[in-house]
Amino acid sequence: MKVVRAEIIAIGDELLYGQIVDTNSHWISQELDLMGVKVVRKTTVGDDRKDILAAFASAEARADIILITGGLGPTQDDLTKPLLAEYFDCPIVEHTAAVEAVTEFFRKRGREITPLNILQGHLPACCTYVPNEVGTAPGMWFERNGNYWMSMPGVPHEMKKLMRNFVLPKLPTLFSLPVIVHRMVKTVGIGESWLADLIRDWENALPKTIRLAYLPSLGHVKLRLTGFGTDKTTIENAIQKQIDMVLPRIEKYVYGYDSESLETAIAKLLTTNKKTVALAESCTGGYISHLITGISGSSSYFQGAVVPYHNRFKNEILHVKNDTLNSFGAVSEETVREMATGVRGLFQADFGLASSGIAGPTGGTAEKPVGTVWISCVGEGFVETKKLQLTQDRILNIQLTAVAVLNLLRICILEK
Amino acid sequence: MKVVRAEIIAIGDELLYGQIVDTNSHWISQELDLMGVKVVRKTTVGDDRKDILAAFASAEARADIILITGGLGPTQDDLTKPLLAEYFDCPIVEHTAAVEAVTEFFRKRGREITPLNILQGHLPACCTYVPNEVGTAPGMWFERNGNYWMSMPGVPHEMKKLMRNFVLPKLPTLFSLPVIVHRMVKTVGIGESWLADLIRDWENALPKTIRLAYLPSLGHVKLRLTGFGTDKTTIENAIQKQIDMVLPRIEKYVYGYDSESLETAIAKLLTTNKKTVALAESCTGGYISHLITGISGSSSYFQGAVVPYHNRFKNEILHVKNDTLNSFGAVSEETVREMATGVRGLFQADFGLASSGIAGPTGGTAEKPVGTVWISCVGEGFVETKKLQLTQDRILNIQLTAVAVLNLLRICILEK
Repeated sequence: MKVVRAEIIAIGDELLYGQIVDTNSHWISQELDLMGVKVVRKTTVGDDRKDILAAFASAEARADIILITGGLGPTQDDLTKPLLAEYFDCPIVEHTAAVEAVTEFFRKRGREITPLNILQGHLPACCTYVPNEVGTAPGMWFERNGNYWMSMPGVPHEMKKLMRNFVLPKLPTLFSLPVIVHRMVKTVGIGESWLADLIRDWENALPKTIRLAYLPSLGHVKLRLTGFGTDKTTIENAIQKQIDMVLPRIEKYVYGYDSESLETAIAKLLTTNKKTVALAESCTGGYISHLITGISGSSSYFQGAVVPYHNRFKNEILHVKNDTLNSFGAVSEETVREMATGVRGLFQADFGLASSGIAGPTGGTAEKPVGTVWISCVGEGFVETKKLQLTQDRILNIQLTAVAVLNLLRICILEK
Repeated sequence: MKVVRAEIIAIGDELLYGQIVDTNSHWISQELDLMGVKVVRKTTVGDDRKDILAAFASAEARADIILITGGLGPTQDDLTKPLLAEYFDCPIVEHTAAVEAVTEFFRKRGREITPLNILQGHLPACCTYVPNEVGTAPGMWFERNGNYWMSMPGVPHEMKKLMRNFVLPKLPTLFSLPVIVHRMVKTVGIGESWLADLIRDWENALPKTIRLAYLPSLGHVKLRLTGFGTDKTTIENAIQKQIDMVLPRIEKYVYGYDSESLETAIAKLLTTNKKTVALAESCTGGYISHLITGISGSSSYFQGAVVPYHNRFKNEILHVKNDTLNSFGAVSEETVREMATGVRGLFQADFGLASSGIAGPTGGTAEKPVGTVWISCVGEGFVETKKLQLTQDRILNIQLTAVAVLNLLRICILEK
């Protein structure tokens, strides 16, 4: 079976100058991957005629599907539409339905349409107009010599809607797609090399139809198993067999599979065990609460949080003893334990969690340098505390502490 | 003056399959841009011999500097090092200093080194070894036919350290760099088209040496002015003159310039005015506190926050009246006003902020659909409230609410 090859071209000076992050290419990759379309390359070029035309030409030579994002705004720096017209050698003409749609878009929102916006309804004569329900720049679909092209706005939720409503449903009608299965085994609390050492002989004995990759990220290592074949169930079973073989060696580090995050794994554990949690976040400043409440349904197990940024509020709101604060300091095992105990009582939660540390870049001392963090989990009949020695980077310290606190909670739910 | 052209090549199947986001290319772009090096293309390829070698060859034909990230891990799926050796036609040999460094890296951390890790000290004979102080995969620098190449690990903080310590200081010694000045004017609370309409005649009258771009992102639109020339001060003055001309029309939307974020702009306002703030975050679940405390020094104006995820705690901790909660509901002007008042009192802050809404995707009603959010800012002698009608997307709603709350605070500090 022929592999269907896709390329993604992101257009915009702002992407090359590093002024905005291209999250679109990542999302498109994920969606195509799920369908068995192989993304072979992602390219980012600036708002430059020659570079854009060169990217079109080399993508056409390599790929079956070319997905283009960006450069469709109403302003003068946007070149994608005129260059597509040039590349496909056809004029830009007024497209009645597209002009109507953009006019309606403004009317619905009670806003006056501008002449610039009306021009967004003018399109290359050789493209298929694809309505954009959530924005003003339409999608444009082109076909030539067996290649398919889609141009979409760079605004993420507009691009996603066009992909979901039009491109993704269309692909299976154009190609016979291969069967690829990915499974992800997610670990926390062990580094890549140690994990590799634990499972090397298993890895070396994997069948040729299954590929393994290690994907490290902040405090986590993900193992990705990719299986190739002709029948989905057969591949899934082969991968599951391999996971069952390796699991006993790494079980205590595994928090979940596939799209599961540490937050959703904890959501499941708390829901299953009918337990609730509350947080006292000092150095993490609300970040852990944000991770937990980012999940729909979190109100069933998340009671609330306090960010007591000064000692005074650690005492007044969480009842940390002033003696403790004075004798051991805010960043200490004693304080973090009382914070966790206090917030557990305040919110009447099953588990109380706390963080207190020196996130940096300032505030460190010889005894407690930047990156010193204490965390705690308190529950019925137990108190767990842990000291972390992290980095010089404030944001990284906040993120790493969050992972450590969530992992401590995970272990406490499982073991207590 | 010759423009120095750079290309960035990110290597790894995980980037094409969409399993991790490439934040490295974005960061590298920003740093090169500041030095006047023009990034002309970013390319992402998978762990595939042919694709990687093709990307090397086409980058060499176009760019003066090629920066490569990823594919340097100790595991078997990492191909960058052997393919660089192949491309530059030289053998991989044991590099004494590199082996010592990786051994020392493990010794310092009290961990046993693995045979896989020792191999990370073996390098192509034709490269310059660049020590990686924070990880196990060394940097590798190559020179050939007037082109310069740097290969770095994909782990962001390792790549950054190698860029900062080695690549960025080296570039001015290799090239005579042009002078490019970017300035960013940052607005909040107005859409791209409306902003464009407000300033169109100014935009059309810009001199040819200054380019304008509109960069929309969540709730913000940034105006980027890019000036080209030979003298930095002359360009800066020319850009400043244009900003001074346009500012009176858009002043109330402008919160800052360049790398300033809405959070840092507020930090400055609060510090200058010697004011403090506290937050009651219901639907935003700690996200606004996280944004504020992500900034070093925030403890001087941030008092603390409460995330009262249930009505009961809105009453017990923030003293929102049960009558109010029963009569108007948690998502109401009345409740959010009492939350802001309560948290202001609890933390004895100058400004109390509050959010309460239906972030979704569940929990909506006909009267209060998903995306309905109330926000409030309370200070000495005033109470401001605002209703937002946002999207169906939980995370987007949290982010948009955060921008709206921070902007409300900004306006209150300026006007009250």
